[in-house]
Amino acid sequence: MTNSVYIATSLDGYIASSNGSLEWLNHFPNPTDSDYGYHEFMDGIDAIVMGRKTFDIVSSFSTWPYSKKVFVLSHSLKDIRPDLVDQVELVSGDLNAIVKKLQQAGYHNLYIDGGQTIQSFLKKNLIDELIISKIPILLGGGIPLFSAEHPMLQFDHCSTEVFEGGLVKSHYKKFEPFCSSPFLF
Amino acid sequence: MTNSVYIATSLDGYIASSNGSLEWLNHFPNPTDSDYGYHEFMDGIDAIVMGRKTFDIVSSFSTWPYSKKVFVLSHSLKDIRPDLVDQVELVSGDLNAIVKKLQQAGYHNLYIDGGQTIQSFLKKNLIDELIISKIPILLGGGIPLFSAEHPMLQFDHCSTEVFEGGLVKSHYKKFEPFCSSPFLF
Repeated sequence: MTNSVYIATSLDGYIASSNGSLEWLNHFPNPTDSDYGYHEFMDGIDAIVMGRKTFDIVSSFSTWPYSKKVFVLSHSLKDIRPDLVDQVELVSGDLNAIVKKLQQAGYHNLYIDGGQTIQSFLKKNLIDELIISKIPILLGGGIPLFSAEHPMLQFDHCSTEVFEGGLVKSHYKKFEPFCSSPFLF
Repeated sequence: MTNSVYIATSLDGYIASSNGSLEWLNHFPNPTDSDYGYHEFMDGIDAIVMGRKTFDIVSSFSTWPYSKKVFVLSHSLKDIRPDLVDQVELVSGDLNAIVKKLQQAGYHNLYIDGGQTIQSFLKKNLIDELIISKIPILLGGGIPLFSAEHPMLQFDHCSTEVFEGGLVKSHYKKFEPFCSSPFLF
């Protein structure tokens, strides 16, 4: 069971503008039309878990962007619009219970997306893998990836890749006491 | 004239614990006793500019850690203690004027250090170079490197180096419109 974060942030740690827009990412130069490893990552996951705000944004796109099942964490949403009922399912309640339920349903590798959802998973120490792509810009404000509301969590660095345009993608896995040496605990 | 930031942060962007302590950095494993390029960087700078809080911390060390002149930004400090008067000078006032004055005195390459001082320089778009080393830990709180009080600033990625233990050091230079293509402006 692996819960993974795969996300791009500015150098100052923002994942979106204050209004939730990802427009700044679309302007980042990509001369070789790289997907930065996105499809390879998506091939390895079984389902996506996202919050209602992220769902609102992606469901406004002209085409639905995911081939994998999407679980939307929401207490307020009651229904999924008819054209998405096969792709999207609403979930709510305790995160540990949700993850256990998804695991039992065969969804072992989850892509955890959206600022608040990632923060909720970190608060419960439920993130196993962080794949963070740094874009060389200081946005100076917006929606941050991390909040100061989770415990101290140690990770192991797995790999770092630099792409044309200056995107730096680093892959981290949760520190496992039996695999490597702790430096703080 | 280059104003450089050379600093280590946690994955969530903190440079120190809430009380200003850098103790968490001392526990990071360094089996080959690497200096992560610190001395090479220090060889290239002419002076250090830091805030009063950073000065309070470094001046409490048992030995003074710098061979280069240190300028301390402070409105409140009136005197430098006798054993440091040759190494340390107090400066205050407008940052542009301070930088110009230092340049005229022959200090062309400045190491800008300390969270608040770095943020003050960013607010005035006075940072030319960012060298940021990411430590694979989420601290979950502390003193952040970046604040949301500066304008949007674009940088060019120069290089990224991964060190044993998982420290990822990335070097960025301020975007220069005549050297590379903008992606947002």
